[in-house]
Amino acid sequence: MRAADRSALLTDLYQLTMLQAYFEGGMNATAVFEFFVRKLPPGRNFLVAAGLEQALDFLEHLHFAAEELDWLAGCGRFDRRCVDTLAELRFTGDVQAMPEGTPFFPDEPILRVVAPLPEAQLAETRIINLLQFQTLVASKASRVRRAAGDKLLVDFGLRRAHGAEAGLLSARASYLAGFDGTSNVLAGMRWGIPLYGTMAHSFIQAHEEELAAFENFARCHPQATTLLIDTYDTEAAAAALLPLAKKLAADGISIQAVRLDSGDLGEHARKVRAILDAGGEPRIRIFASGNLDEYEVQRLVAAGAPIDGFGVGTRMNTSADRPYLDCAYKLQEYAGAARRKRSEGKATWPGRKQVFRRCDAAGRMAGDTLTLETESALGEPLLRAVMRDGRRIKASPPLAEVREYAQRQLAVLPDALRDLEAVAAYPVEVAEPLHELARQVDARKH
Amino acid sequence: MRAADRSALLTDLYQLTMLQAYFEGGMNATAVFEFFVRKLPPGRNFLVAAGLEQALDFLEHLHFAAEELDWLAGCGRFDRRCVDTLAELRFTGDVQAMPEGTPFFPDEPILRVVAPLPEAQLAETRIINLLQFQTLVASKASRVRRAAGDKLLVDFGLRRAHGAEAGLLSARASYLAGFDGTSNVLAGMRWGIPLYGTMAHSFIQAHEEELAAFENFARCHPQATTLLIDTYDTEAAAAALLPLAKKLAADGISIQAVRLDSGDLGEHARKVRAILDAGGEPRIRIFASGNLDEYEVQRLVAAGAPIDGFGVGTRMNTSADRPYLDCAYKLQEYAGAARRKRSEGKATWPGRKQVFRRCDAAGRMAGDTLTLETESALGEPLLRAVMRDGRRIKASPPLAEVREYAQRQLAVLPDALRDLEAVAAYPVEVAEPLHELARQVDARKH
Repeated sequence: MRAADRSALLTDLYQLTMLQAYFEGGMNATAVFEFFVRKLPPGRNFLVAAGLEQALDFLEHLHFAAEELDWLAGCGRFDRRCVDTLAELRFTGDVQAMPEGTPFFPDEPILRVVAPLPEAQLAETRIINLLQFQTLVASKASRVRRAAGDKLLVDFGLRRAHGAEAGLLSARASYLAGFDGTSNVLAGMRWGIPLYGTMAHSFIQAHEEELAAFENFARCHPQATTLLIDTYDTEAAAAALLPLAKKLAADGISIQAVRLDSGDLGEHARKVRAILDAGGEPRIRIFASGNLDEYEVQRLVAAGAPIDGFGVGTRMNTSADRPYLDCAYKLQEYAGAARRKRSEGKATWPGRKQVFRRCDAAGRMAGDTLTLETESALGEPLLRAVMRDGRRIKASPPLAEVREYAQRQLAVLPDALRDLEAVAAYPVEVAEPLHELARQVDARKH
Repeated sequence: MRAADRSALLTDLYQLTMLQAYFEGGMNATAVFEFFVRKLPPGRNFLVAAGLEQALDFLEHLHFAAEELDWLAGCGRFDRRCVDTLAELRFTGDVQAMPEGTPFFPDEPILRVVAPLPEAQLAETRIINLLQFQTLVASKASRVRRAAGDKLLVDFGLRRAHGAEAGLLSARASYLAGFDGTSNVLAGMRWGIPLYGTMAHSFIQAHEEELAAFENFARCHPQATTLLIDTYDTEAAAAALLPLAKKLAADGISIQAVRLDSGDLGEHARKVRAILDAGGEPRIRIFASGNLDEYEVQRLVAAGAPIDGFGVGTRMNTSADRPYLDCAYKLQEYAGAARRKRSEGKATWPGRKQVFRRCDAAGRMAGDTLTLETESALGEPLLRAVMRDGRRIKASPPLAEVREYAQRQLAVLPDALRDLEAVAAYPVEVAEPLHELARQVDARKH
């Protein structure tokens, strides 16, 4: 059985029933779909594009496996001709997209698919599934990074991420958006993301004595010793490890850090810092985790808590305050004619679009123009060709390079947008040619 | 490369560093870990256990693949002896658990792992990852079912679920908890979940005329025709399809339903119902989707909106108002001695525990007792042996059977707990032997 993340059946039933109707109606002309976000989630000032790499990988490998075709043939909904046509289906189209790590705003497409209608249609469900999740997490993670300043930030969220792929891709998206690393070993193996880890309470509890647990761990991992000190009594553990630190030092082993995972983290950090400093261990750093997000990190940093790094999990990996985006992948052109949906509150801009971004003299983002692909405007165009005839135009950059690009992009955001609360919207102008096309499309009869 | 959901590296780094220390220290005695929820999310009155099937599957197949071992050997953190020991590692332990579909409450373990310490430790991350997500979604979906009464409920959430596995497992969890089906084709193939689907706006837009799209779809799918009528003007589309319905009827094709996906769903449903009834089509049903959750469904049902079924997506699949559970998988016993963590706000009950559930004369749940496994109490024990020596004791029941069990369980919840708002907590008594053990454990020195 194919893994879920590779299955062509990881889609909505209606994609397949629509495809059957397209096949029967001979509707195989070129379709243009664009993925965009309709509205920013409340309290967000921008989003960070992510997930393109996985979307392209999906398109390059899109096909139905034999067992999937057998199942479709036997499920009673699709005739043999339809199943045979599905067996031949591959993605043969073009894709234009913003690079991962680009900040973007409502109505701006971050990806466009140009392909025969059935191919572009079939891709909808998984394209949304991949782009919305990583964009959601990268956007959230970039906020945690802003709140944390230069402090160490590690993704700790695999366990409460929504399944395997969510754990894996949220590690990727958070690193892309500025985290320093992750605890997720598979993400380290796949993308070279730096790995961080400490110990669990169970490690302490499995030993008869907390100090014995500390010592065993330190001797086993002399290069990476971070001790979890809140299992029983945080300050007592901090005091008790001072003689251990001296004993280990005699053997050339140094304790790098302690981790706090419960209670008032700022208060414990202050007390533990004082204990360590008074005990002659100013170099042991303090790492904190437990129910953290950008607001809590900001509060701890603002209060001057002596915390050197944060493990941020659940609330970042699930984007807990805003766990989804109001996003869509919509048909904007078919068989050469622009299209738009006019549903209440969900109307879309028709046609193939481009986003131009202007910067001021200091290099800061000053405003975007949304216009037709065939028009030009001041600034740099953000959507670039990334796939032609179903194949990537060039190999994807390593993730570390994507991360550097994202950091440069986030560095030129207008200062106001860096606020964790909502501020006045970034200026995105819809150019006249796009307004004109929308009027033309609306004037057509349906 | 192994799929993420099968990889033994889909874990936190600290599991592996702890394992190395356990190997070096010869710490291979029997460990007992239990998974439980610390607190109900605000506004929830109970949770529905789910995810056991995937957790057992994970344990039965747990092993490191050759490429994973190579990577571990080369990453610079683990010595050859450790990697060789990992290569041999399989799960050889026992598991006791509540059946999927069982309602449960804080501090009640829903799963216990009894195994050599390294095996039980290594399982932590993925066990939490699997149990918390499906339990979260099953619990949310059971609320939507309560709000919807007997109306048709279909999972539409794959696209905004957090990745592939989240889409797949949320289809499973929502069906288990009372949904009628899903749009997710892979979930239909894997578990026989009934599939539902309509059409997308793009299907309408790809046709020059809305009515032509309706007719093409109906002729292609005469047995399952639900038409999406909100692409341009909902009421105009409802009126326009009346002559089409007569024309199709002449060919033996009936339109089963229309779908509304935008605007004020209750208001549109009333207008569309009136148009269809006046046009002699009282049998065409109305299906609604778009930003629905239990609160919105309850509001629509209470207002008497003539809606026959709901497609519920994003907010259910992400459990959007409460996208995670405060849950843990904690060491409760090692080498025959009970253990507990005492971290502030996170103290746990030590030892191997059992939950006994009492029912009143009418068969309604009346109260639970949390006690030691070796004790007895009034009522039925909820945790049962499901795995011995690393193998399932018996084959898992089909999902439809699990769903029936869940429906019977949910039917005997106390009436008050059915409220969508928080009510007085269900009585869970912690028995004296457990209090006594906790005191004994605390009296030990650490």
